[in-house]
Amino acid sequence: MSTHRFLTEPHTVAIVGCPFSGGQPRPGVDKGPIHLVNAGLVDQLKSLGWAVEFAGHHLFEDISVQGDPPVGIVKRPRLVSGVTSAVSQIIGGHAAQGRLPLTIGGDHSLALGTILGTFGKYPNACLIWIDAHADINTATTTDSGNLHGMPVSLLLGLPGNESIEDTYFSWLTQPGVGITNGEHNKPTKRPVLTPAQLVYIGLRDVDAGERAILRQNGIKAFSMHEVDKFGIGKVMEMALDHVNPNRDLPIHLSFDVDALDPSVAPSTGTPVRGGLTFREGHYICEAIHETGLLVGLDIMEVNPSLEDEGSVQQTVKVGCSLARAALGETLL
Amino acid sequence: MSTHRFLTEPHTVAIVGCPFSGGQPRPGVDKGPIHLVNAGLVDQLKSLGWAVEFAGHHLFEDISVQGDPPVGIVKRPRLVSGVTSAVSQIIGGHAAQGRLPLTIGGDHSLALGTILGTFGKYPNACLIWIDAHADINTATTTDSGNLHGMPVSLLLGLPGNESIEDTYFSWLTQPGVGITNGEHNKPTKRPVLTPAQLVYIGLRDVDAGERAILRQNGIKAFSMHEVDKFGIGKVMEMALDHVNPNRDLPIHLSFDVDALDPSVAPSTGTPVRGGLTFREGHYICEAIHETGLLVGLDIMEVNPSLEDEGSVQQTVKVGCSLARAALGETLL
Amino acid sequence: MSTHRFLTEPHTVAIVGCPFSGGQPRPGVDKGPIHLVNAGLVDQLKSLGWAVEFAGHHLFEDISVQGDPPVGIVKRPRLVSGVTSAVSQIIGGHAAQGRLPLTIGGDHSLALGTILGTFGKYPNACLIWIDAHADINTATTTDSGNLHGMPVSLLLGLPGNESIEDTYFSWLTQPGVGITNGEHNKPTKRPVLTPAQLVYIGLRDVDAGERAILRQNGIKAFSMHEVDKFGIGKVMEMALDHVNPNRDLPIHLSFDVDALDPSVAPSTGTPVRGGLTFREGHYICEAIHETGLLVGLDIMEVNPSLEDEGSVQQTVKVGCSLARAALGETLL
Ligand SMILES: [Mn+2]
Ligand SMILES: [Mn+2]
Ligand SMILES: [Mn+2]
Ligand SMILES: [Mn+2]
Ligand SMILES: [Mn+2]
Ligand SMILES: [Mn+2]
Repeated sequence: MSTHRFLTEPHTVAIVGCPFSGGQPRPGVDKGPIHLVNAGLVDQLKSLGWAVEFAGHHLFEDISVQGDPPVGIVKRPRLVSGVTSAVSQIIGGHAAQGRLPLTIGGDHSLALGTILGTFGKYPNACLIWIDAHADINTATTTDSGNLHGMPVSLLLGLPGNESIEDTYFSWLTQPGVGITNGEHNKPTKRPVLTPAQLVYIGLRDVDAGERAILRQNGIKAFSMHEVDKFGIGKVMEMALDHVNPNRDLPIHLSFDVDALDPSVAPSTGTPVRGGLTFREGHYICEAIHETGLLVGLDIMEVNPSLEDEGSVQQTVKVGCSLARAALGETLL
Repeated sequence: MSTHRFLTEPHTVAIVGCPFSGGQPRPGVDKGPIHLVNAGLVDQLKSLGWAVEFAGHHLFEDISVQGDPPVGIVKRPRLVSGVTSAVSQIIGGHAAQGRLPLTIGGDHSLALGTILGTFGKYPNACLIWIDAHADINTATTTDSGNLHGMPVSLLLGLPGNESIEDTYFSWLTQPGVGITNGEHNKPTKRPVLTPAQLVYIGLRDVDAGERAILRQNGIKAFSMHEVDKFGIGKVMEMALDHVNPNRDLPIHLSFDVDALDPSVAPSTGTPVRGGLTFREGHYICEAIHETGLLVGLDIMEVNPSLEDEGSVQQTVKVGCSLARAALGETLL
Repeated sequence: MSTHRFLTEPHTVAIVGCPFSGGQPRPGVDKGPIHLVNAGLVDQLKSLGWAVEFAGHHLFEDISVQGDPPVGIVKRPRLVSGVTSAVSQIIGGHAAQGRLPLTIGGDHSLALGTILGTFGKYPNACLIWIDAHADINTATTTDSGNLHGMPVSLLLGLPGNESIEDTYFSWLTQPGVGITNGEHNKPTKRPVLTPAQLVYIGLRDVDAGERAILRQNGIKAFSMHEVDKFGIGKVMEMALDHVNPNRDLPIHLSFDVDALDPSVAPSTGTPVRGGLTFREGHYICEAIHETGLLVGLDIMEVNPSLEDEGSVQQTVKVGCSLARAALGETLL
């Protein structure tokens, strides 16, 4: 195992199973983490030399939301807020202990919690978001009202989320919660991350409103067009150059399996043609591991209820092997 | 929408549906354009910001060919001549009005008409031909006698077509028809285009006679070997450098869907393994659009009768998305 | 056909069919060569301009091994030794005559014979090994005891094979057999090849013991990670730069079809995900042919009994087309 600059010895990965589907409408994505663990993820990571901590999946049973009417068209804001806030505490705890949290979803709204969790410990970290989608809609731009398409805008504190932000997601930006800004007396909110700390890879299904947001905020994104144009080797180099030019900042990698081509990862809620190949997906994870800077990892949107048995197994296996690649499995 | 240097405002695409299969033996390719339009092509292009003109498919019912015996082994020369000559008038008309003609085929012999049509208006344009095949056989070199394998040799006015050229395709080279050479009084024929105006991408099934022609005429071709070697990003750059070094000449893009791998576009008459990936095909179209120089587009050889329903739908969808990509749809 | 610097005119390929499966446990790989020939390989190579010599498959009937108990866990050492020793004589004979031996397997233990055969004639040749696996286990490191996973260690004369080397594979290193070292009186063994003469491409399933061996011996290997990172064009250039910097040394290409992705070559004994695409596999062969330096070729591990009819045909066709590409078939 290569050096992990920010982790405590012995290197420990904490698997955080989040069987949660409240950020989107399709049932089944909550079964993703169970399948990934049943496929042997714990032992696989142990065999890579990691100490593995896994104490069962988080059922979030204490999060009681009686009625959860939409706010505008944003669905289940209270439930998503409650669960992701709890996730942020769990992830933050692992990060504080020098462990590497590996969150397995579950839908991508969970990243609200995972990223606040790691950025609480590492505020100058960068976020590498692998996805067919930008997940950067606001309460104003969203067409579907599904919060799994909105986490990035909330993490950036972008305008357009006023209807939900202060009411339900104020914990994301409370002074002192996950933010070390030394200005606790000032009511000014500070978002979890800034546009310069973020880079996307794999985009190919981005709403018009999202495109405008990306442009206005100068957010760097490598769509599949750039992957075709430069090759994945060069794209990873450019992506890291953008958010981590000296290769010395902590990295949170949030991997939505729908970034992969549907022929590679068919069993996911919002598949889009023309995605990353099996090898490109793994190359990304391998390249991140090589930096020795990984401090947080999400494997999201494996939904084992959408396809036939073979496709489900294939998707679950890919989810496991992406995690292994990010945690040090090499071909050679 | 990016600037289109050569088109009139408001930017208008004229969809020219050509349900024609006479350049090759398999029935069904004449159903291609109907499927593409039924799949929603008109509205898709409108949503990209184009004014779309589409007045039904051209049935060429007035082209009456009583008996059409082969000339040598060249099949249906009168019919192909009649139809493609009519197509050239239609395309020429759109080009003259500053519209972008998008011809949907139909077999690739139609390019005789589409390219004369655009080159009549833009004689210094370049032709980018995306195909598994070179379609540059002459009446002398052809083994099959199918005219969809010969349009490029006729457009270049190559030797070897004497048996059909003067008799049936003289309209291709009549002084003054589609040619601005200022030499109307001279009987010398001038071909529609010269070898230097042409570049191929995607070749992988080229007859021995065609190879000799390519070599003898110094025609630039990027086979799949070069796509592997350099990557599609670099290949597009080199292809444009060859035919359009200053990025200021009009571009006609003639896209045979069999350039794509059969796993991507299965429902076509002459599929060949080892073709362009879904993304490479779209990258080509995106890169052409980025130039702002497109003045003519063909999407050819979608044949909805050759495969099962799923494969047909897949091929039709790819045909539409290639057209969208060439007309400005971007991933981001 | 491009120049073949080391072959006698008229250029002759000698097809050596080796229906042998003794280096691994799955029956059926011995049927590979029969299928390749039945698919038309002989005529295909003739049509590329080669004189083709093929006098039926070698049945090795005279190699009688009564009982063949394992040595440690190494299985069938006497049988593998007997067959591959015979193969080395056959290949050596062809090489001595200035022919190009094309060995079709059969399992990859056969390379013990093919490589000794060509390196007997060309001791300064280089070996390019295309495989998902390194096939470099020793009798000490092997978990399976299958000799098709060990030929490279025996060819290199690595430590760890003491239990089988002197007893069964001494012919590999006998002074004067296939080795021109001018030191016949000295009992010192000299291996068939040195680590610097070898390069791998395509690796992605390498045992821990093999990784150590590769590292300790400084053996150059391009895994799929490097193919992703640099592209196959650059990888071939780097591979040749390593073993053949001046492009003047003879090349033996040993191609295990499991280097290809299982979607490309499914019918093989030990398929591994994330392999070479159809085009990458052929590009390798085309690039080797372009050097004009090929003196030995193996197409190995086609096993027609492992999959459905369609997958078998696909794999057999790929085997033939790889051979054609290495022997001069070009796309253009
Ligand atoms: Mn997504
Ligand atoms: Mn997502
Ligand atoms: Mn074609
Ligand atoms: Mn064509
Ligand atoms: Mn192998
Ligand atoms: Mn092998």
